[in-house]
Amino acid sequence: MSLLRSWLNVPKESHFSLKCLPFGIISSPSDTSRRVGVAIGTSVLDLKAFALGGGFSKLLEVQDHFNVFEEDTLNGFAALGQDIHRAVRRYLQNILSTETNHAALLKDNAALREKAILPLSSVSMHLPMRIGDYTDFYAGIRHAFTVGTILRGADKALQPNYKHIPVAYHGRASSIVVSGTPIRRPGGQVCPPGTSDPIFSPCKRLDIELEMAALLCRPSELGTPVPVNQASSYVFGYVLMNDWSARDIQAWEYVPLGPFTAKNFGTTVSPWVVLADALEPYRTQALPNETKLQSYLQEERKDSVFDIKLKVELKTASGGAMTLSQTNASNLLWSFPQMIAHHTITGCNLNVGDLLGSGTISGPDAGTQGSLLEANKGGKTPIKLPNGESRVFLEDGDTVRISGWAGDEESGYVGFGDCVGQILPALS
Amino acid sequence: MSLLRSWLNVPKESHFSLKCLPFGIISSPSDTSRRVGVAIGTSVLDLKAFALGGGFSKLLEVQDHFNVFEEDTLNGFAALGQDIHRAVRRYLQNILSTETNHAALLKDNAALREKAILPLSSVSMHLPMRIGDYTDFYAGIRHAFTVGTILRGADKALQPNYKHIPVAYHGRASSIVVSGTPIRRPGGQVCPPGTSDPIFSPCKRLDIELEMAALLCRPSELGTPVPVNQASSYVFGYVLMNDWSARDIQAWEYVPLGPFTAKNFGTTVSPWVVLADALEPYRTQALPNETKLQSYLQEERKDSVFDIKLKVELKTASGGAMTLSQTNASNLLWSFPQMIAHHTITGCNLNVGDLLGSGTISGPDAGTQGSLLEANKGGKTPIKLPNGESRVFLEDGDTVRISGWAGDEESGYVGFGDCVGQILPALS
Repeated sequence: MSLLRSWLNVPKESHFSLKCLPFGIISSPSDTSRRVGVAIGTSVLDLKAFALGGGFSKLLEVQDHFNVFEEDTLNGFAALGQDIHRAVRRYLQNILSTETNHAALLKDNAALREKAILPLSSVSMHLPMRIGDYTDFYAGIRHAFTVGTILRGADKALQPNYKHIPVAYHGRASSIVVSGTPIRRPGGQVCPPGTSDPIFSPCKRLDIELEMAALLCRPSELGTPVPVNQASSYVFGYVLMNDWSARDIQAWEYVPLGPFTAKNFGTTVSPWVVLADALEPYRTQALPNETKLQSYLQEERKDSVFDIKLKVELKTASGGAMTLSQTNASNLLWSFPQMIAHHTITGCNLNVGDLLGSGTISGPDAGTQGSLLEANKGGKTPIKLPNGESRVFLEDGDTVRISGWAGDEESGYVGFGDCVGQILPALS
Repeated sequence: MSLLRSWLNVPKESHFSLKCLPFGIISSPSDTSRRVGVAIGTSVLDLKAFALGGGFSKLLEVQDHFNVFEEDTLNGFAALGQDIHRAVRRYLQNILSTETNHAALLKDNAALREKAILPLSSVSMHLPMRIGDYTDFYAGIRHAFTVGTILRGADKALQPNYKHIPVAYHGRASSIVVSGTPIRRPGGQVCPPGTSDPIFSPCKRLDIELEMAALLCRPSELGTPVPVNQASSYVFGYVLMNDWSARDIQAWEYVPLGPFTAKNFGTTVSPWVVLADALEPYRTQALPNETKLQSYLQEERKDSVFDIKLKVELKTASGGAMTLSQTNASNLLWSFPQMIAHHTITGCNLNVGDLLGSGTISGPDAGTQGSLLEANKGGKTPIKLPNGESRVFLEDGDTVRISGWAGDEESGYVGFGDCVGQILPALS
């Protein structure tokens, strides 16, 4: 049976081919309750309606678990584990394929199609998971090097620990928002260069950070590290992330305990979770690390990051538009399994719904960088837009759109959709 | 009506006088479900049983909310807000007083007494709240100064921002455990002094941090700072906390993003939440800060920390015992309202169940310090126990007990009970 084509409309350029089938939390005008949906081309399959209508009757594995599709987060489905995720995804690939052998369940069932298939454009998307803890890594070595060079010079750009441990900090879970949520420009304390007394000011160096993030589906025990070669079984799936950053506030506050109010005013994630299984075909090698790693960080497989094309686009309130960055999610020194192994090495426990950010992903060249701080060379070089506008950092009304996809038009895309946010003016 | 004496047994030395009435999550041999209890002397009032038995029939405010006492965390009760907490606490003071005017409800109701009053020694205590986000501040200036002096010398001990902002970092919520939970000695990467290559080792500099922590009862909106003079209305109550710290792991990992695996292997909190109202009589002034503060940190009242005596005791596996520290919770440069105002200044939202730690609380002198790193002068001076043992940092089998109380024997104590943890050997 070929799974290449769906009987639903899947334009060639769609992120959501039959190979993708990402999971998200939807609501719609006809049913305003939050529930689980799966994106396919220009449609969404409402899994609550599908399950209630008998759609899963040929999949034994989920017979006792239909309630997870009625929940308002993906936590319940995630907690069922990767074997079930894989079985459900493959079953749905069959159901939605032109060559399905269960046509009676949906393809030829007009009543259920009417209930369970919604136009993608008609659904509202919500935060996909109830996030317990959020950890942000710093595995984008090119970002770390460029920012370190700006702050400390090239010879001291990376700290001595950088190539030995996946450096990270705990982030703020409460302010993680779904794509489309506006971000208010923060106000806070800044200490202008050359002065010793801080002032209160709206952030004047508001930046983005292009990241990929993993959502977890499996808890671990307090006191017991997760072995690196088992760590991928903890990953439910992946989203794109924009870790909005107030650089001027960050510069004043971050010593000695790391970023705090400069980061916790908002972090945007894309709404569709691309399951771990869907990215398996796109494994590739991480950036080389010549360091001899501690054994708990040594992976058997060498292809544990992903070949995902990433793009950051800017639109201004005056109609200006440009691509700020095009890069690839393989620009990481550390893989998510290594991050998980390190996160738990002293005994920290993981929970279903934890979010791990990769850190800012940047390529080596101009036009491939995941933050404005890199592109503007530490705030010194304005970025020119085609319409004559320029930007050093973000201005009010600016909209930043991150997108990402693996695969190609011919074979079908495995994409994340968009991770979007617009900057609102600071409170006066 | 005098509220000074209870008809239940309240020994003079009890932390849980009628003035205290802390709330916690209990279970017991006769009812293994987790539920809400209140400590009074050597007893616990089971609020689930009390509510089911009509005990709240004279308190209109909670008639529609009895379900919160059957929940397995205090989040539901906390979310009812300070007015209800105050009303419930005062009502229970009346019910449990010798001069209660509702004697028929409990004091003279043998059947309900039998069901609802349990020996304190018979109940198991559980984590009091479902903690959303955990933030650890650094408001203990004497700790910050002493540790900064050890690391950087006295003239650079405090960073330039220290007296302008309540410095903090986001902590790990998943590994917060209730008093009594053993703590496994972590293993991790350390870089021995004088070397450039890290090794993997069980932590050899395992330390404590004596803290007080606030649990929140009120959410705030993303994008909207909480005004400092309204911030106390967000506090449900307080617990004691031990922020276990692996100093050798911390020294290697903490640059540039702050502590991570050196802290996230476990944080212990005391089980009984002393409600904000119960600490009102013990307000006192924070340590002086000569800095002109930004207006968002300027409090109208000057007595917004608490006069709470704190004690840290050590017991060793060989029977050694000593008091490591005696200090006071007023040794803070910043109050919890200031911490809340700063936490939200860039727009970060708060949730019911968030935990804010004060940072390590130390006095100025030997014997008043909240961490071993201070008492042992950076790991250089062993601490002598009366039985001839000595300690630089914690050894396997050591038990650390933190306790704290306001008030005195004559007027009755408002105490926290204990915050205890024993060190298990590292995994081999």
